[in-house]
Amino acid sequence: MKETYANRLRNLARAQQDVRVDLVAIVPGANLRYLTGLQMHTSERITLALFPVDGQPVFVLPVLEAPRAEANLGIKASLYTYSDEQGPGPAFRQMAGDLDLEGKVIGVEHLQMRVLELRQLEAHAPEATFVDAGPLLFGLRIVKDKEEIEALRRAAEVNEECFRQVMEHIQPGVTEQELAAVWQKAVLEAENSQLSDIPTIVASGPNGATPHGIASSRRLQNGDLVTIDAFLLVDGYFSDITRTYAVGEPDEELKRIYSIVQEANAAGRETIKPGIEAQEVDQATRQVIDKAGYGEYFIHRTGHGMGLEIHEEPNIVEGNDLLLEPGMVFTVEPGIYVPGLGGVRIEDNVLVTETGCETLTTLPRELLRL
Amino acid sequence: MKETYANRLRNLARAQQDVRVDLVAIVPGANLRYLTGLQMHTSERITLALFPVDGQPVFVLPVLEAPRAEANLGIKASLYTYSDEQGPGPAFRQMAGDLDLEGKVIGVEHLQMRVLELRQLEAHAPEATFVDAGPLLFGLRIVKDKEEIEALRRAAEVNEECFRQVMEHIQPGVTEQELAAVWQKAVLEAENSQLSDIPTIVASGPNGATPHGIASSRRLQNGDLVTIDAFLLVDGYFSDITRTYAVGEPDEELKRIYSIVQEANAAGRETIKPGIEAQEVDQATRQVIDKAGYGEYFIHRTGHGMGLEIHEEPNIVEGNDLLLEPGMVFTVEPGIYVPGLGGVRIEDNVLVTETGCETLTTLPRELLRL
Repeated sequence: MKETYANRLRNLARAQQDVRVDLVAIVPGANLRYLTGLQMHTSERITLALFPVDGQPVFVLPVLEAPRAEANLGIKASLYTYSDEQGPGPAFRQMAGDLDLEGKVIGVEHLQMRVLELRQLEAHAPEATFVDAGPLLFGLRIVKDKEEIEALRRAAEVNEECFRQVMEHIQPGVTEQELAAVWQKAVLEAENSQLSDIPTIVASGPNGATPHGIASSRRLQNGDLVTIDAFLLVDGYFSDITRTYAVGEPDEELKRIYSIVQEANAAGRETIKPGIEAQEVDQATRQVIDKAGYGEYFIHRTGHGMGLEIHEEPNIVEGNDLLLEPGMVFTVEPGIYVPGLGGVRIEDNVLVTETGCETLTTLPRELLRL
Repeated sequence: MKETYANRLRNLARAQQDVRVDLVAIVPGANLRYLTGLQMHTSERITLALFPVDGQPVFVLPVLEAPRAEANLGIKASLYTYSDEQGPGPAFRQMAGDLDLEGKVIGVEHLQMRVLELRQLEAHAPEATFVDAGPLLFGLRIVKDKEEIEALRRAAEVNEECFRQVMEHIQPGVTEQELAAVWQKAVLEAENSQLSDIPTIVASGPNGATPHGIASSRRLQNGDLVTIDAFLLVDGYFSDITRTYAVGEPDEELKRIYSIVQEANAAGRETIKPGIEAQEVDQATRQVIDKAGYGEYFIHRTGHGMGLEIHEEPNIVEGNDLLLEPGMVFTVEPGIYVPGLGGVRIEDNVLVTETGCETLTTLPRELLRL
């Protein structure tokens, strides 16, 4: 892995030169893990890494995190530590002087960095210019390498096994929360897998009309559809799968909605190949749903990239003319949500290949009556 | 609960007037939940609530989150929604015009808000002044009310029950990860309880010298100490407990370290009463450890407040002269970490009472040999 991180740092430096960003500042999260191997969580104690175009990366971090950083860093770096009593100010001052931040262009992660870290940087480099490093960093991560694809594949496999365990518990009387707990326990029992912090979605009956419905105490009833959208990590990489199941026999409109979404999902996946625009996948699913008269009930984009983060580039949305390339991994997840009635979503994980796409998820897509 | 949120909004408006903050801008997280009852997670789709001193709060949020917001909001609010195709720009423009943000003083959460949201606000109110609303918001939340204290008490009880289940599995040969999984499964089985996104700490043998050591594949050995630091939520409120156990009979220095930490923990808790400064609790624990000659190995503050967040005010650290008041809840968690040898931490959750303090955690503090 050391070689992997060294390569990634070289690619970062090259990308920085292309867009004239002198340093990139990274907080705990996916980019930090991608570039250095270090996993940290966000807390009131600032941890910040700075990557100059030339020379060694530097970290400002709490002294109590130094042993963890030293043990897990996949790269060589200089550490500026601070104690709880001191706070981060003196370490930032020292670092800013050593790196000569004044007047530089510093890329920051708009999607991850807090105002807390930004204000520290501004205080110690008042003449620096701050720009969004998001596009640059997503550019590095958008095409997955072989090891990343293997991790994404394993994540999909583990998630599907957890779904199979949940399916056995779908029946009238069970609560949404109980189903979520079955899935979560299955994740804890699977090797190398980890729950994410975003609550598992289990939405049954009329709750299904809320795309992000958190599992409630509602009991499943005969005739319900129940949508389960569940995400986990394997070796740091996400799987994000949704299936909608029937409890017994649902009414005609729900069955009709289900087949429309199933058709939209297939149409989206069939469209995918290198060279097309991301928005064409969105258009393909939306066309099916629009034609069937449910366009106003498909209230989100068709999908999102997936890797070290559950949502990353490429964004599968109208207006995104990014060209798909082999090695990109994203979700295809059309849905229909009818207030008062219920909802359906079918979400697969796909990998763009040289000739088309491989769907990493294999769970049945026809309506299962449980 | 509607009355609770109405009261909290009144207190917020009063606090805003005191410090002349025209509006407070809140992102998903503890403050949003405290003020409105709404639980959302952070994503690339911006959700932002604005609280003017007078008049109804407003939300800018993705249209797909609107059903969830409408179902769970404990207050009346105006919603400005946007689709994935539009992005948040137009909704921000409309909202900024309606609220007349220009030239106002806007409080933002430095600890929670991302550069993403800050830049949106700046773009639509370039003449506004942005200040840190953190102290104002922590001021509202620092003294817990009766319902909050009940939730914190239940959280401690559930966490202790999960610790008891883990204790039964501590023996030579078991891995740190296996112990973490036992604890996590116990949490999933407990009523109303929820795992947090921060990894469970299980650090055995020499790993114990890393205060935030994530559970690894290391197998426990005879003579090890093993430190378990585990956090969960019940009804949204945290419990955060650490205990260090012995696997068989540890060596003399480890036993000596253990008794020093045990004494420091007791000294800290005995000091607590209304009217003393937060730093006095830190001084009490640190004095014991300093005197015993291990001062340089106690590399963090004595504790932190706890509530809807795992770390909040009051910060139990040298330099904090905040006066303790009845209803404040925080941890007391001295530790000693000796590189190459191992570590000990004993963490309790305490509630400041009218006359002193009540320790919400009841697990034994003497060294248990398992």
